[in-house]
Amino acid sequence: MDTGRYRVEGGRPVNLGQFSTRADRDINKKEARDQLMPANILRMAQLQEKLYAENRHALLIVLQAMDAAGKDGIIRHVMTGLNPQGTQVVSFKVPTSHEMDQGYLWRINKALPPRGEIGIFNRSHYEDVLVARVHDLVRSSQMPLELVTPDIWDQRYRQIRDFERYLHENGTRVVKIFLHLSKEEQRERLLDRINQPDKNWKFSAGDIQERRHWDKYMSAYEHMLEHTATKEAPWYVVPADNKWFSRYLVSQLVLEVLQDINPRIPELAPAERAQLAECRRLLEEEP
Amino acid sequence: MDTGRYRVEGGRPVNLGQFSTRADRDINKKEARDQLMPANILRMAQLQEKLYAENRHALLIVLQAMDAAGKDGIIRHVMTGLNPQGTQVVSFKVPTSHEMDQGYLWRINKALPPRGEIGIFNRSHYEDVLVARVHDLVRSSQMPLELVTPDIWDQRYRQIRDFERYLHENGTRVVKIFLHLSKEEQRERLLDRINQPDKNWKFSAGDIQERRHWDKYMSAYEHMLEHTATKEAPWYVVPADNKWFSRYLVSQLVLEVLQDINPRIPELAPAERAQLAECRRLLEEEP
Repeated sequence: MDTGRYRVEGGRPVNLGQFSTRADRDINKKEARDQLMPANILRMAQLQEKLYAENRHALLIVLQAMDAAGKDGIIRHVMTGLNPQGTQVVSFKVPTSHEMDQGYLWRINKALPPRGEIGIFNRSHYEDVLVARVHDLVRSSQMPLELVTPDIWDQRYRQIRDFERYLHENGTRVVKIFLHLSKEEQRERLLDRINQPDKNWKFSAGDIQERRHWDKYMSAYEHMLEHTATKEAPWYVVPADNKWFSRYLVSQLVLEVLQDINPRIPELAPAERAQLAECRRLLEEEP
Repeated sequence: MDTGRYRVEGGRPVNLGQFSTRADRDINKKEARDQLMPANILRMAQLQEKLYAENRHALLIVLQAMDAAGKDGIIRHVMTGLNPQGTQVVSFKVPTSHEMDQGYLWRINKALPPRGEIGIFNRSHYEDVLVARVHDLVRSSQMPLELVTPDIWDQRYRQIRDFERYLHENGTRVVKIFLHLSKEEQRERLLDRINQPDKNWKFSAGDIQERRHWDKYMSAYEHMLEHTATKEAPWYVVPADNKWFSRYLVSQLVLEVLQDINPRIPELAPAERAQLAECRRLLEEEP
């Protein structure tokens, strides 16, 4: 499968209407779900073990989407199968007042995966150019008012590009995924959450409120993609109307970046090798 | 399988020599590894989903053992299959100087699993009555010297009992697992790490040093078990010479505590139900 067609070319205007929300017709559902994805997950787990052993790179996967686009399902279906020792999922909720007393990247920094590990952000610093932009939340935050200028979004895009470049240059690979859901499919899924009692707990009346701002959100996503898709930290627009397809595609994206990192079990330096021989002797000569 | 036989009765002297390090002969290896354990993991994942949805209890699994007893393998083989969103593994290393400037439970508190989640401690606060006791580390720490009395270990056992009772009383279930390895089996496994190049990275010359204090460690474990095995936070001595067996037994222990918690998908209150109906109407009447 060619994942390149889902990658966003940064630096030029993005029109989400030109990106499909449906599965690629060339991919067979049953094969993807029952064979290709499980095979991908198995290879991901093998590479994860080497990533952990090598202990040099980290991998950060950022998931952004409208409500009910399948973020939680992606994590459950694609990331279950990874070793939890070496995998951390962080869900970013509405910032606490404690978090609001810092710049918006403060809580993000604290939650970064350490070397050797895979971090998954369920929402992220991108909320600060999405929900914050749609609802103009910066003005009502604790930011010094003279710093809240019309430039604020362009500033934040630049800050985020700088931050992610810093991560890349220090060993953390960043892959960003936007689950692209149609408005009609969201409606179906929200109705499911209402109509199926065992899904009620996932429903939030706030989702209906947010849905009213759909076009504003799409516009915020388009600007975000244009200004923060970089070579070092690419964005992928993943069609999300078919859950089996978005899950399979995300497994492929994660596998490809792990393959590209190409982690190796570390080899010993000569001095360490000599120490090993001494330890072997001690163990073998034990009474 | 009767897991009760591996549970330690607290409050009375423990003799680890009377606990087997070998697999129970009544359990068939192939069946345990290929059928019983995978079935347990599947049921764990189902219960984990309800634990997450209910969002009231947390589960904390503490793993303690001598080097090479299989802690990492237990996590990889038993906990892979859990949803990483809702599972966090924390490995406690030698305390940093920043951590040493706080009481020993400070870093433990920070790492507790939140409600709805499963936390796995790879080593824990018990290091502060194990390695700290064997090597008399409290004296060389930053503790006020007048507080380092001969009572220190009994004090710490009490502090830990109090701490774990507090956790239990606030919704966190605590299960503590000691992987009981024979000294001879440790020798074999350390030699494996030396002799197999792809396992070299797991080897630490420090393990050979620690092995010299084997009897002191066993004595420290016995005291710890006697004084910190409680009804609210039980200890299990898991035979660890056969990896397939310790993995299967741990899967059984975790499953049983999840079954005992018995989490349920939350039901809606009448007011929430009315709101749901209103949201359904809004969605259905959309143009």
